[in-house]
Amino acid sequence: MIITEPTIRKFTQNIFLAIGCGQEHAQLAADVLLKSDLRGIDSHGVARLSGYVRLWEKGRINPTPNIRVVHETPTTATVDGDAGLGLVVAPFAMQVALQKAELYGSGWVSVRNSNHFGIAGYHALMAVEKDMIGFAMTNASPLVAPTFSNERLLGTNPMCYAFPAGNYPPVIVDMATSAAANGKLEIAQRSGKQVPEGWIQDAEGNFTTDPHALKSGGSLLPLGSDRDHGSHKGFGLSATVDILSAVLSGANYGPWVPPFVAFMDPAKDPVGEGIGHFVGAMRVDGFRPVDEFKHHLDNWIERFKSATTVDPSQNVIIPGEPELEAEIDRMQNGIPLVDAVVNDLNELAVRFGVQQLK
Amino acid sequence: MIITEPTIRKFTQNIFLAIGCGQEHAQLAADVLLKSDLRGIDSHGVARLSGYVRLWEKGRINPTPNIRVVHETPTTATVDGDAGLGLVVAPFAMQVALQKAELYGSGWVSVRNSNHFGIAGYHALMAVEKDMIGFAMTNASPLVAPTFSNERLLGTNPMCYAFPAGNYPPVIVDMATSAAANGKLEIAQRSGKQVPEGWIQDAEGNFTTDPHALKSGGSLLPLGSDRDHGSHKGFGLSATVDILSAVLSGANYGPWVPPFVAFMDPAKDPVGEGIGHFVGAMRVDGFRPVDEFKHHLDNWIERFKSATTVDPSQNVIIPGEPELEAEIDRMQNGIPLVDAVVNDLNELAVRFGVQQLK
Repeated sequence: MIITEPTIRKFTQNIFLAIGCGQEHAQLAADVLLKSDLRGIDSHGVARLSGYVRLWEKGRINPTPNIRVVHETPTTATVDGDAGLGLVVAPFAMQVALQKAELYGSGWVSVRNSNHFGIAGYHALMAVEKDMIGFAMTNASPLVAPTFSNERLLGTNPMCYAFPAGNYPPVIVDMATSAAANGKLEIAQRSGKQVPEGWIQDAEGNFTTDPHALKSGGSLLPLGSDRDHGSHKGFGLSATVDILSAVLSGANYGPWVPPFVAFMDPAKDPVGEGIGHFVGAMRVDGFRPVDEFKHHLDNWIERFKSATTVDPSQNVIIPGEPELEAEIDRMQNGIPLVDAVVNDLNELAVRFGVQQLK
Repeated sequence: MIITEPTIRKFTQNIFLAIGCGQEHAQLAADVLLKSDLRGIDSHGVARLSGYVRLWEKGRINPTPNIRVVHETPTTATVDGDAGLGLVVAPFAMQVALQKAELYGSGWVSVRNSNHFGIAGYHALMAVEKDMIGFAMTNASPLVAPTFSNERLLGTNPMCYAFPAGNYPPVIVDMATSAAANGKLEIAQRSGKQVPEGWIQDAEGNFTTDPHALKSGGSLLPLGSDRDHGSHKGFGLSATVDILSAVLSGANYGPWVPPFVAFMDPAKDPVGEGIGHFVGAMRVDGFRPVDEFKHHLDNWIERFKSATTVDPSQNVIIPGEPELEAEIDRMQNGIPLVDAVVNDLNELAVRFGVQQLK
């Protein structure tokens, strides 16, 4: 089913209002979720709306959080999200980072006591709109085993770096630090297809192509897949995200990160509060004039876009380019939702007395 | 041959003095190179000393650079390395970052007009010694093809993140953003062994296990190896390093980065000056008290070290741990150098009238 952007936006806002969010937070949370659907990252958008609602039912999401800075210097801060939606906590944290960057050149905020924040790219792009370089990362429920291990100790822990260009769209590197994002695994699960070797291992630590292996004790693999191909690097990146997001802020880290699915309880022995994020911004003109930077980034983009390729019909893809193409298309033509998601959303509609999607 | 640390340190200093470096720069440059040998990263240590000398011969390294800040805000700066050794330019830049972090919580420095800076970990560790989190990255001569391309457009572009722990050594993620570091390829070339599929491709873009494929138009692959296994992520990370190090500072980027080997000339149409680095530091106590952070990082380390593993005799390796073990061993027992490196160094000794290694 194809739903227009304003329809699904209004719907999503209404659900957030129904669970008790204020108007401003409901609008912002819907904006973050929608951005994911618009950019073609279907796993992180409204497909997760009922998941957030279930966490709220369990009392694990506070719809009226008192989000606040609990520690700071001129360019660093720790934010306590008061168990709010990561969808509103992370933009708050990024606003703090932007204000600091405005005054001092850069700003860096570690966040505790939050929940899942949608796509990292949303938050990093807030900096790009101000001609700054944006950084955003978050830890997440443990699904990934470190190199040599068969224990799920890390989330897919995404990191995002975003840079403003001139005549081209911003360069946005927004990536899970696992070999494959969990969303890709979910797509294979739904379609009944096998996945490539190197994405997951079974409970004994053998490569498997069964997308359901996680249900029987398997785990996702870090970027690099195995030691020979640099999985210790994917592990290192994931560790970096975990430490900056949680060890630095006072959130839960590693296997203690609370699961996104409400049917699994958080650890009984938490090492912090909620999940953690890390966001930051640096003014481009803190290093060189903005027009010079953009001129050279345009040149960088042009050189890479015109690179010789193995298959002449497949150009080099600049990070962020496919997502922007999806956004332009879906703003105009609507957002395709699979039936399972529409049904899920319409169950929410019935329950909260909101108009159903059709 | 095993050479004691003081012997090879003195030797290296003498060579840097012989090409005209001042006493302080010669000591520092030797310290950076030695750190690599001590930490077991043999490819980036004294094995490269003759490479630096050949660049100096070509007039591409200035032994008496006027390294200076050319643009700044309270927490950001651009440093011009005046074509000096990266081995002294990057520590200068990190000192600037540390001073800014001391005053404002964080400090970030992009560097242009530099040369290769040794191991990223050296520079990031300067922050860790002050209970700060350290960042260091650099671009490098083009050897890596972006996803879909068979053109060498990026260096192995390493990034390093370093965190101070309490009872444990610091966590140091120091990694090339390619599937395999060039040093590993060089080892395979010397030993005549094949390399795993997924490290390199031939000129046509096919995986090859021939470690000499780069000489016939092949290229290194980004971390992830191919599109299915996330090579677009390795490409994105490498792009991030290139943009922060060079597009931001005014250094050369992408295929314009001057080659480290002196027999290849720099591009005739440079887009900037020299090669670029990016370093940064954040005070841990800008986010939470240092003892709290270290206590939780120790707990993080203990949890990961005690993880269940596929092979019970192989524990999870904490990033930075093997390098520290090598350092302790080599400080005590000396540094093993292969004959080719010893001969190379002794040729320098003869030429500059320095005492030979034996």
